[in-house]
Amino acid sequence: MRDFLPEEAQRMRHVENTSREIARLFGYGEIITPVIESYELLAAKSSDEIRQRMFAFNDLGGRKMALRPEFTASIARLVATKMMRKPKPSRLFCLGSLYRYDEPQFGRYREFWQIDYELIGSNKPEADAEILAITYNLMERLGIRNFYFKIGHIGILRGILSQEKVAEDQQSGIMQLLDKKRWDEALTAIQELGVSQECIATVRTVLETRGKDARKVLRDAKINVEKYESAVAAVEDLQEILELVRSSVGLEPLVEAGFARGLEYYTGMIFEVYVPEMEIALGGGGRYDKLIELFGGEPAPAVGVAQGTDRLVLAMEKQGIAAEASKKKWVTVIPVGAELRAKAFELSAMLRKAEIPAEVDVMGRTVSKALSDANKRGFTHAVIVGPEELKEGKVVLRNMKEREQRIVTIDRLTKEI
Amino acid sequence: MRDFLPEEAQRMRHVENTSREIARLFGYGEIITPVIESYELLAAKSSDEIRQRMFAFNDLGGRKMALRPEFTASIARLVATKMMRKPKPSRLFCLGSLYRYDEPQFGRYREFWQIDYELIGSNKPEADAEILAITYNLMERLGIRNFYFKIGHIGILRGILSQEKVAEDQQSGIMQLLDKKRWDEALTAIQELGVSQECIATVRTVLETRGKDARKVLRDAKINVEKYESAVAAVEDLQEILELVRSSVGLEPLVEAGFARGLEYYTGMIFEVYVPEMEIALGGGGRYDKLIELFGGEPAPAVGVAQGTDRLVLAMEKQGIAAEASKKKWVTVIPVGAELRAKAFELSAMLRKAEIPAEVDVMGRTVSKALSDANKRGFTHAVIVGPEELKEGKVVLRNMKEREQRIVTIDRLTKEI
Repeated sequence: MRDFLPEEAQRMRHVENTSREIARLFGYGEIITPVIESYELLAAKSSDEIRQRMFAFNDLGGRKMALRPEFTASIARLVATKMMRKPKPSRLFCLGSLYRYDEPQFGRYREFWQIDYELIGSNKPEADAEILAITYNLMERLGIRNFYFKIGHIGILRGILSQEKVAEDQQSGIMQLLDKKRWDEALTAIQELGVSQECIATVRTVLETRGKDARKVLRDAKINVEKYESAVAAVEDLQEILELVRSSVGLEPLVEAGFARGLEYYTGMIFEVYVPEMEIALGGGGRYDKLIELFGGEPAPAVGVAQGTDRLVLAMEKQGIAAEASKKKWVTVIPVGAELRAKAFELSAMLRKAEIPAEVDVMGRTVSKALSDANKRGFTHAVIVGPEELKEGKVVLRNMKEREQRIVTIDRLTKEI
Repeated sequence: MRDFLPEEAQRMRHVENTSREIARLFGYGEIITPVIESYELLAAKSSDEIRQRMFAFNDLGGRKMALRPEFTASIARLVATKMMRKPKPSRLFCLGSLYRYDEPQFGRYREFWQIDYELIGSNKPEADAEILAITYNLMERLGIRNFYFKIGHIGILRGILSQEKVAEDQQSGIMQLLDKKRWDEALTAIQELGVSQECIATVRTVLETRGKDARKVLRDAKINVEKYESAVAAVEDLQEILELVRSSVGLEPLVEAGFARGLEYYTGMIFEVYVPEMEIALGGGGRYDKLIELFGGEPAPAVGVAQGTDRLVLAMEKQGIAAEASKKKWVTVIPVGAELRAKAFELSAMLRKAEIPAEVDVMGRTVSKALSDANKRGFTHAVIVGPEELKEGKVVLRNMKEREQRIVTIDRLTKEI
């Protein structure tokens, strides 16, 4: 678990606010779901790996609860229940903290944050393309450089294995091996299921079909899997998706025909985003057409992406990107003696009404101590409230950077700063 | 536990963003602390009531952990450890979700949200006044009407009891009875401690000393407690605080000389904010000068306030206050046929670059179905991308409210919307 001190917290909030702005521009409505959900709900369609790492406990009423390890189950529950009657598609956005009992390591914490966009109700390639465009726009707006997408389609490998009559849960085990790049083990596992020699050869070639020329990679992949009808359909789906994001946002991803992500619920396009400075993905997502109905809703195709908020912050720090312009104006108001504190309060309220950040000295410091403190802390101006000037409706305004001061009338104070 | 759908989530974020703007204007730096902390830390200085209602559990490493029931312990820990060397005062702001196993009832939930401002390092009345001014400003900026402050000073009752040699933890028990308005029980409990008859009479009068004319109430209180030196000092402290906020923000609170709040750690001024429409407080706080050192820090006086984010939202709903202006422009882009989807994507990206929220139809609808859907959902404009117009670099722009449409060149599209 971590604390974020002001500088880093500001970066977190900057990333969140930028993501909220993107949500607004793409028409995604924000939702807030609870951190605690029933264990059964959260465990239902997670991978074994996530299930074992959940923070689970019995509440005072004896029910087994857990802290959410991802957003997808909560969103699927919400869509299946409270949003059933809303017109489709639903465009949903959410952000917040998630919990997994991982061994802490670079970029991985037991409490981490995500930003989530889900487009529910469309099975068209436009929907996948929109999720990719959102992700691309977020990176761009944050000023992250050299980011790249790794894209695949789970339907390619699953299409081959299904036609070879490999059961879905056996397929899931193989996907998890592939997700961890344990290719040899995966190929051995496939072989032991008694599939055709052609299947093994096709899978092996799929795993090697990758590259930055998306059009060429997918042409090659299509020829390789031509005996497997639904694998061909998966390649064509990915071709359509990539044509849409190429023309609209200029996305040129790294395509991996054999790309697999650990979660069982993906059914179509899958992707991750990286920067060269970090090994872990900044975000990732994909299509999950069967999940909503598993949570009791009407069948609804869906596609979504989750970005690691703290990972985006880390990437910005590594690339030296400032979160926001530093404070332009920042004023300290110093009363000369306790009897002028009320006046100092009044003036600080006046400054804030004019949207100028202002602090009143609350340490009872002498003027010279308060000024020396103001200097250290980077205030741009000090307003010194003294009895002589005040009689004439005036105060001393000191420009801290230029070390100059002059007497100004209170009426003009906000304009002079 | 609750879900917030888009309309209510937007209200929550509006309240949070407003509170963050206030933090900026008052110079409070935002921090983020974890939802999970060690049970020992969170239990250390809480009231028994809160302790019994914490969500506690053993983590996979066997340590006893809990979900935070309030922010104060986490902030005190942070100040006592990571912020030890920072110059004083520290002005800190945080917000997020908290957890208590309460019976759900109006305005009380097991997961709830707070907004917290803490001013650490000053024991001067200016600091107390600043926390009151922040709270007042937040209510004002949110547009909440008829809010009122209930203010007291824990040093009045504690001052009397201390001079009568009542031990601190016995005092705390009495304060909790008073907090629940169980006055008779409290008076009996005091009597059973063998205090003087004068003490009982003084406490009884203190409990009845309340009213909206703060100056008069505090004058009366001072005369009543005159035999108890530190109670007199407490009244004087509260007089100074209230003079400061009267002149700067015009705060005229309801003063209750016998006001007590449940938490043990308060040492000075205490307050709560209400609206007439709701029985529960929207927020509350006070001074806690001994807490930081209990968490191992250097002794540091402190004063703070926590506002209930969801309660502020509730108050705004009850008063019919809109969170934000409804969307001014909201555009749907409809391709006439699948081969124009890429162009629709490109145009939507162009609109968003001009800060205009835009959605592309992702349901593969016909133009008439897409327009009828756009009408129901409240879009202000529809852009129809058809093959004929596109040949001339044009699209159809439909104003949904006025039910008019015309053909515009793509170059001028953002200007025409």
